[in-house]
Amino acid sequence: MSSSYGENIRLTVFGQSHSPAIGMTLEGIPAGEKINLDALLRFLERRAPGRAAWSTSRKEADIPEFLSGLNDDCVTCGTPITAIIRNTDVRSQDYDNIKNIPRPGHADYTAQIKYSGYQDAAGGGHFSGRLTAPLCIAGGICKDLLEKKGISVISRIFSIGNVMDNGTLESSTGGKPFPVVDDKQGEGMQELIAEVKEKGDSVGGIIECAVTGIPAGIGDPVFDGMENRISKAVFGIPAVKGIEFGAGFGVAAMFGSENNDEFYFSDGVVKTRTNNCGGILGGITNGMPLTFRVAVKPTPSIAIKQNSVDLSDGRDTEIVIKGRHDPCIVPRAVPCVEAAAALAVYDALSVKE
Amino acid sequence: MSSSYGENIRLTVFGQSHSPAIGMTLEGIPAGEKINLDALLRFLERRAPGRAAWSTSRKEADIPEFLSGLNDDCVTCGTPITAIIRNTDVRSQDYDNIKNIPRPGHADYTAQIKYSGYQDAAGGGHFSGRLTAPLCIAGGICKDLLEKKGISVISRIFSIGNVMDNGTLESSTGGKPFPVVDDKQGEGMQELIAEVKEKGDSVGGIIECAVTGIPAGIGDPVFDGMENRISKAVFGIPAVKGIEFGAGFGVAAMFGSENNDEFYFSDGVVKTRTNNCGGILGGITNGMPLTFRVAVKPTPSIAIKQNSVDLSDGRDTEIVIKGRHDPCIVPRAVPCVEAAAALAVYDALSVKE
Amino acid sequence: MSSSYGENIRLTVFGQSHSPAIGMTLEGIPAGEKINLDALLRFLERRAPGRAAWSTSRKEADIPEFLSGLNDDCVTCGTPITAIIRNTDVRSQDYDNIKNIPRPGHADYTAQIKYSGYQDAAGGGHFSGRLTAPLCIAGGICKDLLEKKGISVISRIFSIGNVMDNGTLESSTGGKPFPVVDDKQGEGMQELIAEVKEKGDSVGGIIECAVTGIPAGIGDPVFDGMENRISKAVFGIPAVKGIEFGAGFGVAAMFGSENNDEFYFSDGVVKTRTNNCGGILGGITNGMPLTFRVAVKPTPSIAIKQNSVDLSDGRDTEIVIKGRHDPCIVPRAVPCVEAAAALAVYDALSVKE
Amino acid sequence: MSSSYGENIRLTVFGQSHSPAIGMTLEGIPAGEKINLDALLRFLERRAPGRAAWSTSRKEADIPEFLSGLNDDCVTCGTPITAIIRNTDVRSQDYDNIKNIPRPGHADYTAQIKYSGYQDAAGGGHFSGRLTAPLCIAGGICKDLLEKKGISVISRIFSIGNVMDNGTLESSTGGKPFPVVDDKQGEGMQELIAEVKEKGDSVGGIIECAVTGIPAGIGDPVFDGMENRISKAVFGIPAVKGIEFGAGFGVAAMFGSENNDEFYFSDGVVKTRTNNCGGILGGITNGMPLTFRVAVKPTPSIAIKQNSVDLSDGRDTEIVIKGRHDPCIVPRAVPCVEAAAALAVYDALSVKE
Repeated sequence: MSSSYGENIRLTVFGQSHSPAIGMTLEGIPAGEKINLDALLRFLERRAPGRAAWSTSRKEADIPEFLSGLNDDCVTCGTPITAIIRNTDVRSQDYDNIKNIPRPGHADYTAQIKYSGYQDAAGGGHFSGRLTAPLCIAGGICKDLLEKKGISVISRIFSIGNVMDNGTLESSTGGKPFPVVDDKQGEGMQELIAEVKEKGDSVGGIIECAVTGIPAGIGDPVFDGMENRISKAVFGIPAVKGIEFGAGFGVAAMFGSENNDEFYFSDGVVKTRTNNCGGILGGITNGMPLTFRVAVKPTPSIAIKQNSVDLSDGRDTEIVIKGRHDPCIVPRAVPCVEAAAALAVYDALSVKE
Repeated sequence: MSSSYGENIRLTVFGQSHSPAIGMTLEGIPAGEKINLDALLRFLERRAPGRAAWSTSRKEADIPEFLSGLNDDCVTCGTPITAIIRNTDVRSQDYDNIKNIPRPGHADYTAQIKYSGYQDAAGGGHFSGRLTAPLCIAGGICKDLLEKKGISVISRIFSIGNVMDNGTLESSTGGKPFPVVDDKQGEGMQELIAEVKEKGDSVGGIIECAVTGIPAGIGDPVFDGMENRISKAVFGIPAVKGIEFGAGFGVAAMFGSENNDEFYFSDGVVKTRTNNCGGILGGITNGMPLTFRVAVKPTPSIAIKQNSVDLSDGRDTEIVIKGRHDPCIVPRAVPCVEAAAALAVYDALSVKE
Repeated sequence: MSSSYGENIRLTVFGQSHSPAIGMTLEGIPAGEKINLDALLRFLERRAPGRAAWSTSRKEADIPEFLSGLNDDCVTCGTPITAIIRNTDVRSQDYDNIKNIPRPGHADYTAQIKYSGYQDAAGGGHFSGRLTAPLCIAGGICKDLLEKKGISVISRIFSIGNVMDNGTLESSTGGKPFPVVDDKQGEGMQELIAEVKEKGDSVGGIIECAVTGIPAGIGDPVFDGMENRISKAVFGIPAVKGIEFGAGFGVAAMFGSENNDEFYFSDGVVKTRTNNCGGILGGITNGMPLTFRVAVKPTPSIAIKQNSVDLSDGRDTEIVIKGRHDPCIVPRAVPCVEAAAALAVYDALSVKE
Repeated sequence: MSSSYGENIRLTVFGQSHSPAIGMTLEGIPAGEKINLDALLRFLERRAPGRAAWSTSRKEADIPEFLSGLNDDCVTCGTPITAIIRNTDVRSQDYDNIKNIPRPGHADYTAQIKYSGYQDAAGGGHFSGRLTAPLCIAGGICKDLLEKKGISVISRIFSIGNVMDNGTLESSTGGKPFPVVDDKQGEGMQELIAEVKEKGDSVGGIIECAVTGIPAGIGDPVFDGMENRISKAVFGIPAVKGIEFGAGFGVAAMFGSENNDEFYFSDGVVKTRTNNCGGILGGITNGMPLTFRVAVKPTPSIAIKQNSVDLSDGRDTEIVIKGRHDPCIVPRAVPCVEAAAALAVYDALSVKE
């Protein structure tokens, strides 16, 4: 089913931007796992709107209510975990025209066709970036459970527009107000975001993610290798248009003698000197950090007038989008990418060998 | 299951490089569809080894035998279609050392860990590029059935090393000996391949694919959108390390005002002036060509001596790979990418709305 | 996943007897379907506790709140439908001993083993008959959508203890206070229930169900035939211990010449004179009513003292179960069986041929 | 997919009665498991046709050829196991009329509707009892792997027509020429079969199966409990029309005080004095033998003239079935039931807790 993910655990996200609630059900988490609610709330806070200049001013408390699957002391009882977040700060009137005049870059038109006009268009409906909140609940739980196994999912903004981060992703940037390695570059990114906001425009970027501490031998070729699994999860985040593992598109211009990661022993453990494969060979982890990058498009909602069509009368028209929008979705997408990766890795680890 | 793909149709590939046979079972194709065997054989021929300078000299007739699912006149009867290809030109002795000394860039080491040493290592086993033959049988069938619905899956080599194709992908390059739009650039690519072969090295590249004629409204968000579906299929091809849709990683450096594809009416049909979204919005097709590119790594098998480890004694060692190998896998991967795309699109079209 | 059902639509039930809420998510219902809330509430009322002498005195309003998937006017928008029911009349202290002294006939012991003692034992947790409420929400929706296609799911109590209904199931008994064809026999059944209640005991029964108006050609052999699909759904109802289709176990003592249903034309439509096959041949409907019966065990909660074990000290002990319980679960299970059948049939109809 | 079974392992059966081959692919068996080919062939021999008076005279060697998934020494390598059986003794002309004049009790008519006349009708196509051969290959492998874990799948003929076996099923009857506990009763059954054969008729029966040695805690409620799993597998055997667990339909006439299985400690192990629940509570095994019975209908192919319809001209007609058929399918169905049970249990055991 399309709003579900996973083979061994299974996440289902539900809700629309302006429905009574959004939420998620997560099946397959073993009984007896303590859910760290504090860590989860801190994780969700990284995605929450209304916190900073680059974010929409829509404010939602976004505190999940757990309806099932936990005992009184937040320990899993082995059956489906459901959590919901009530939608409170709803302004449906901002979106009245969407069904007739689709916003460029949004799913308005495609939803109109797919659902024969019955889609819940308000706020983007099920396509809203808001649906990444339930993804982050599930992913945050998985991330925390992975942490207990010594596996960390970390990430950073790799670039915004043409401003690139420096340095190497080696530890979590989640504690920083702006998640980059080089804060100086982060300032440049924030300046760029402020500029495009000023112009009523938006800008895209790249997020880099790494999973460290993952044991060798995880992933199931042919179609459930780590690349397949992570891609399927990551493209569930609206605005992602590309993914690459290790050297990624860079491999295209490399020779085999450059690209091959040579093996060596380090204290009895097999490692590779380079990590062009992103820790994945034949879809299976090799024990090195699993690394990937995703391309995030500029927020399609911009204040600048755009051309569109009026589906009600079959004529070309113009559209000016009102409402509250992020000039750059990338910073808030960082925890979403971690969530997707954690979900995919946890699922892959749950295969009984 | 890991060697299976699809929600509404379901492909399972089986076999190892040197097992008695490789093959595939394809479930869910409706009864009454005529399989065009000639077209299928021509399609498989594009992937077959031993045809050209850039290809391994291993020769396999690679003629599929259909065991089930068809009536006498090659019309589907509604139940699973199974086809096999016998492995004939097998030289297991070429691979005797793989279990102890893993080849850099190959799945030897990860398979060793995952399968506790019980993997069928000969020829790469289930990880062999040879397993793309059953993928191409299934994908070739889907491609042909899509063609009957007016949907074409076309592709080309976008680049080999630093040599890029020119022009735009508008029609199939499948009839050409070297599948590029600009044959002049194709010559440059072939020269580069010849050069690296001479050195015992290999080189990577990028393949571009487009699905034209696909109706708007196909794809199932959140996790079964077209990007999710195609990625999951495409990463089933060994050596693929990245995928991007439409403008792909290019969106990272774009402004919303550049990246958004504005709508207009063309003879009553909604179109977009640009196609940065690659024909996909919110995971759903918008009626424009669905476009994507994949990064293919250089063949890991090279004749140059490499560093590796000897798992039998825990020491670093060197390895020289013998056997027959493609200096560049990209040309033969072109139909594989088409096959994966056709499979994913056919599956997405088979959802009952 | 274990709490999910369906191939083309997908139901997930969540919640425990005493968790904040129970509920369900139903994916795959097409956009544009009007949900008849009145009909749904009437259907749920048939399952609700606290209505009659044979029912537990636990009272729950059991009014579902729809959180997602519907537009303002109760029309589906094409994305997952989630509804929840809050648990209000909760008395956890009634169940304090369950973890140590498992109740015979209940899942207390098996849950203890499976979930290593982390199960939510209160009220039977996820194993509670209460979890049939979300099943009935989903099944009620499917039943109503089937009705619009001319397909009716009807059922009756076939027997309670040794008291059997008379007559043939030809139309819904859902409007009756006691769902049998022959009300006289129904009185006898109610007398038997009153008797066993008096003794602190309980009694089982058989429910018969028929799906009329279902077209020929539905069902997907080998493992998704109608028998497989319906069984998988029906055994999701606690207390069901057997299922038989058409003549069922009766076929064992029949000759082929008796059991075979001969075909004939009736006004141009192929029918069979008998319906020993229960409307299913080779897993596929033949256009005759699809009929089956399920065996429902006596409520395991009885007031009579029983032998059990104390898992805390490894000794045999006795148990007297307090709390509120149905002396006969069969009447309330009738709509549950309809719900399971409706779900299975709707799912089977949603295969794209 | 309809011809596939399993959540953690996955069986796909393919082939038609008269296609070049029938076969199966089994995914998810761990690497390193030795397949006992001798045991498998003996198991298949129990199902094979042409061995006895009650069996069709169609002879097939039915020796599977393994195409993939095994190393040279019959040890699994972790990737899909495919085995095929060539169809050799084919007489298509026996079935020329099936498409027009459907045989009562067979799937001819329903296949005709479902597949719009494109079904492979010869020999019953994919609906043929012959498709239980691949089921038995997979089930036989699972049964053998379970045996290594101390879990035995055993069964017997419980009744043929009105002749019932005596005694209790406690060990395998697989070594006997006629698989009953009480050979005297078995003789009576064989006499009955001989009688009905003489008349050109057929007769049904009941098979009882038990899984002993299965640990407590296996099975996944709500919809993947042991009853759901086993039912889904068992109804994949043509001719099965009912299934009951433990006391089965008998529970309907029992009181809770009779039906509840009281717990006690036996040498520190929790057991129950009775086993009315068939070793399953809440869908989860309780450590007692898992027991069930299935109803098998009389072979629909009988030599007696029957009424049917001619679909080509819309008129009622008569049919006399030629060809070779079993007067009673029950004996050959015994290993099929074991195979289905073994498959279901092995799959349930493969859930990672």
